[in-house]
Amino acid sequence: MITKKAGRWLISNTIIIFTLFFILTLPVRASDVLPSWNQGPAKQSIIDFVNRVTQAGSKDFVAPEERIATFDNDGTLWSEQPAYFQLFFALDRVKALSPRHPEWKTTQPFKAALEGDLKTVFSGGEHALIELVMASHAGNTTEEFEQIVTKWIDTAKHPRFKRPYTDCVFQPMLELLSYLRANGFKTWIVSGGGIEFMRPWVENVYGIPPEQVIGSSIKTRFEIRNGKPVLARLPEMDFIDDKAEKPVGIHKFIGRRPIAAFGNSDGDLQMLQWTAAGSGERFCLYVHHTDAEREWAYDRTSSIGRLDKGLDEAKAKGWTVVDMKKDWKRIFPFDKAQ
Amino acid sequence: MITKKAGRWLISNTIIIFTLFFILTLPVRASDVLPSWNQGPAKQSIIDFVNRVTQAGSKDFVAPEERIATFDNDGTLWSEQPAYFQLFFALDRVKALSPRHPEWKTTQPFKAALEGDLKTVFSGGEHALIELVMASHAGNTTEEFEQIVTKWIDTAKHPRFKRPYTDCVFQPMLELLSYLRANGFKTWIVSGGGIEFMRPWVENVYGIPPEQVIGSSIKTRFEIRNGKPVLARLPEMDFIDDKAEKPVGIHKFIGRRPIAAFGNSDGDLQMLQWTAAGSGERFCLYVHHTDAEREWAYDRTSSIGRLDKGLDEAKAKGWTVVDMKKDWKRIFPFDKAQ
Repeated sequence: MITKKAGRWLISNTIIIFTLFFILTLPVRASDVLPSWNQGPAKQSIIDFVNRVTQAGSKDFVAPEERIATFDNDGTLWSEQPAYFQLFFALDRVKALSPRHPEWKTTQPFKAALEGDLKTVFSGGEHALIELVMASHAGNTTEEFEQIVTKWIDTAKHPRFKRPYTDCVFQPMLELLSYLRANGFKTWIVSGGGIEFMRPWVENVYGIPPEQVIGSSIKTRFEIRNGKPVLARLPEMDFIDDKAEKPVGIHKFIGRRPIAAFGNSDGDLQMLQWTAAGSGERFCLYVHHTDAEREWAYDRTSSIGRLDKGLDEAKAKGWTVVDMKKDWKRIFPFDKAQ
Repeated sequence: MITKKAGRWLISNTIIIFTLFFILTLPVRASDVLPSWNQGPAKQSIIDFVNRVTQAGSKDFVAPEERIATFDNDGTLWSEQPAYFQLFFALDRVKALSPRHPEWKTTQPFKAALEGDLKTVFSGGEHALIELVMASHAGNTTEEFEQIVTKWIDTAKHPRFKRPYTDCVFQPMLELLSYLRANGFKTWIVSGGGIEFMRPWVENVYGIPPEQVIGSSIKTRFEIRNGKPVLARLPEMDFIDDKAEKPVGIHKFIGRRPIAAFGNSDGDLQMLQWTAAGSGERFCLYVHHTDAEREWAYDRTSSIGRLDKGLDEAKAKGWTVVDMKKDWKRIFPFDKAQ
């Protein structure tokens, strides 16, 4: 026989254990995930996809190691207006370096950059922009450059929002990154931006480690300086991670095909095509900038982040298109929810 | 009061719980880890290093995300004699492709490859070898190439051991990879071998996922063929991941400096230098091929995997040098322990 006291002790412990078990195994309810997303087809399509590929025994199940999700950065995870944020970094660097480069006073796009003439800078197209960015980033070691970026990202402010650039990230996308990782996905950045411009801060801001960042790069060279090995950053393009080069970069760095891809411009189209063409369940999503009030509204005719062919293909193939104005309760972490 | 029966029940349960707790928190004893390593300074240096960087609160503690360990492959994780294993794959491919390449009959190193004249092939040096390998690997899509490699690795046999090449891996290094991962390290391959030659099988054999493989590569191009996107493999070098390019590749793919690096030849020297030059605790190890009976013995004058400058620098800098004959109880998983 068990006495009353021991009996009560056993019962109360049993209740605690069952309560803990119940809490720990409680399924996450749909209303709890992606809180900054309004209920609607975009949010639902994400949740449906994740449920399908993570349900053990389902025909659409994907093993955790194959759950690769790739994200463009500019315009997809953070804003890209009034110009790519890295361009503001480049302008600051060009000014700082200009005494050592007298030829920049007469050569475009450097001349325009020094004069703060963004219109002329933009007229050279995305390729010229990346070139400007890369050229202004060379001439130091990888360690020095990391310090320069870190200092700038900690101090520079966005011209419209008067806040650090890393505040101008999309709250709904931060939630999406966390939601995917909580479901066993490995999240990667695949950006036209400079790989070494992103790596110093993406882990803090997006929870993405530097080794899961793919981007444009300049060449580096191993050298021994005063007995110490360094990697010197050369003023020579190595890789431009844009358009048809995005699948090339994905294959080079990851060696697996993503099962989900997220972008916002025609520069992401080939990444989405490459992702969609794999066998089994696939998910492609375009962020459509439709909110002129809280952020910016642009698409088919924009010189930055043009979304034209991509919008047509998304419609034709049934990809998810996020209407930022309708689908997102808030845009930035500093916004109040609407 | 608790009755005798309830008392016994509580006591027996308490004993079970404490026993489980004791087993689960038992520190792993040195004699249990790296079982194929003989007790000695090489084994001890590994264990000491891992203890130092993983002990919370210690001045040498390294956060898990910074525990990057890079491994050369040929001669470090598997054998590389009588020739790099990928060369045997290339020879088989050259034979299969030769009807489409009549010019190979008169051009070196293809002529020698078709004639099975390894000596002439070797005389072109490592660079020529990699070129031969890459050229013989192009002309297909990334998906086709993965299938070709998988089929070869499943069927081809090593000329001396008459076993699959993936049996000719070093048992002590497999244990080392597992031991490091169990201590929070992320293990990477950094090899002069072809990245796409390694990726299809390294996860099964080494427990290293394809996205943690860095290697030599040929260029690829995104194309739409019959409405389906493919990556076409071009007969053009993209990156030769050897010598001074190894730190370049590490920085490009990982974006962090390793805290531990493992190699076997002068081709790994810059990787070890780059690793050693970081701040905080660092570990560099050379595998020295000293066992002519169980494997091969070669170093300063070998055309494959020459270890000359590296051996001097290891001595000067106090890096760990593994004497395969003395330090390893067994070489291959199929060996009996000595």
